[in-house]
Amino acid sequence: MRILLIGASGTIGSAVCEELGARHEVITAGRNGADVIVDITSPDSITAMYQEVGKVDAVVSTAGSTYFGPLTELTPENNELSIESKLKGQVNLVLLGHPYVNDRGSFTLTTGIIMDDPIVGGVSSAMAGGAIKAFVTAAAIEMPRGIRINNVSPNVVAESIGTYGPYFPGFDPVPASKVALAFRKSVEGGQTGQTYTVY
Amino acid sequence: MRILLIGASGTIGSAVCEELGARHEVITAGRNGADVIVDITSPDSITAMYQEVGKVDAVVSTAGSTYFGPLTELTPENNELSIESKLKGQVNLVLLGHPYVNDRGSFTLTTGIIMDDPIVGGVSSAMAGGAIKAFVTAAAIEMPRGIRINNVSPNVVAESIGTYGPYFPGFDPVPASKVALAFRKSVEGGQTGQTYTVY
Ligand SMILES: NC(=O)c1ccc[n+]([C@@H]2O[C@H](COP(=O)([O-])OP(=O)(O)OC[C@H]3O[C@@H](n4cnc5c(N)ncnc54)[C@H](OP(=O)(O)O)[C@@H]3O)[C@@H](O)[C@H]2O)c1
Ligand SMILES: NC(=O)c1ccc[n+]([C@@H]2O[C@H](COP(=O)([O-])OP(=O)(O)OC[C@H]3O[C@@H](n4cnc5c(N)ncnc54)[C@H](OP(=O)(O)O)[C@@H]3O)[C@@H](O)[C@H]2O)c1
Repeated sequence: MRILLIGASGTIGSAVCEELGARHEVITAGRNGADVIVDITSPDSITAMYQEVGKVDAVVSTAGSTYFGPLTELTPENNELSIESKLKGQVNLVLLGHPYVNDRGSFTLTTGIIMDDPIVGGVSSAMAGGAIKAFVTAAAIEMPRGIRINNVSPNVVAESIGTYGPYFPGFDPVPASKVALAFRKSVEGGQTGQTYTVY
Repeated sequence: MRILLIGASGTIGSAVCEELGARHEVITAGRNGADVIVDITSPDSITAMYQEVGKVDAVVSTAGSTYFGPLTELTPENNELSIESKLKGQVNLVLLGHPYVNDRGSFTLTTGIIMDDPIVGGVSSAMAGGAIKAFVTAAAIEMPRGIRINNVSPNVVAESIGTYGPYFPGFDPVPASKVALAFRKSVEGGQTGQTYTVY
């Protein structure tokens, strides 16, 4: 398959790139040092990416920033990071991208455990994850030409413990390579509308 | 209790107003013909509303517009209605409002069945509902001063069948008065972080 992977340089994205790259042609995308440069917060940039890449069999997103911080410091302004990037960025990859996906191809987006199992400081990120999960459930029944759509919801990843560890007391980290398997299941399998939890 | 009800003139809001008004002081809010005029798509308007109203024991939102239409016609632009109104509007009622809520008071927001049980044309609305549900789950563990937060997820309401009926084939409509009971449970009860489904 020809697979477009947005966020390929990230902690999760690089594991997904390794897993899928073993069997498929992976085109990497991101703001820096990727095959195709894209900023998912800009619909114009997303459209330009698809025009440059052309038809693909799968679009995988492991991109998306979110705001972390206490609820009492969460403002309409700093909440925008999660809305513009993880939420609208991933939704717009689908809305603008489905014409570029081959029949019976797929989208796979990324959510995260804190939408189900909340942590202190994670409200904004949980909100974005919940939006993506419900979007995927609903979009699956309307995708044209047999295109499928799923999301992968990882636990905190072992490789991220240095950065996010203090936010996740008592969570049992999973290796990024295990998370990457759920992306493989979504891309190479036949299911749609799923949330693959890797908890 | 002193209760601020945003969206009081709506189909669901008027049933909630009747239910809560029997035992409490209800201050109505909305863009037209309410005690206090507010547009929840504007953070400045939300702040002005809270300054005008002052301290309350409960904030209830039955306000929020969403875009309905086929996925293949859903664009980043028309998806903004759901994001600005139902999603950010309700989130910002909480982010800007908690300082105005008395100790052990509450917020109750509105989601909807299609985030769980999708319908054709409902992707944008489902996305907004999923965001609010996850926001509520996560915000509940961080609310200051014992303030609680829940959401009510109604099935299609019998009073709305004239407008929304064709979108909900085979759904079993619930009376708005039954939905209003879930709002009563949230406001007068002691639970937090809940999604009250009225399906
Ligand atoms: N790490 C974890 O433990 C964990 C657990 C659960 C869920 N998640 C979720 O998984 C996703 C990825 O997490 P991660 O830890 O792998 O992140 P990461 O290491 O920061 O990587 C993010 C990737 O996305 C790209 N990216 C960021 N913003 C972008 C934008 N606006 N446009 C295009 N590309 C962009 C980055 O590349 P450029 O900077 O070059 O653009 C990078 O390749 C996030 O949604 C996160 O919430 C992570
Ligand atoms: N009706 C159903 O069957 C059903 C089922 C499940 C979920 N829901 C959800 O329940 C909520 C209410 O639905 P509804 O059918 O009762 O809606 P509705 O009859 O259209 O009423 C909406 C209410 O919100 C107010 N409002 C709308 N936009 C506003 C804004 N930007 N700022 C302030 N107030 C605003 C309206 O008053 P003004 O126009 O004067 O501002 C009105 O009072 C929505 O989130 C809907 O998705 C409805």
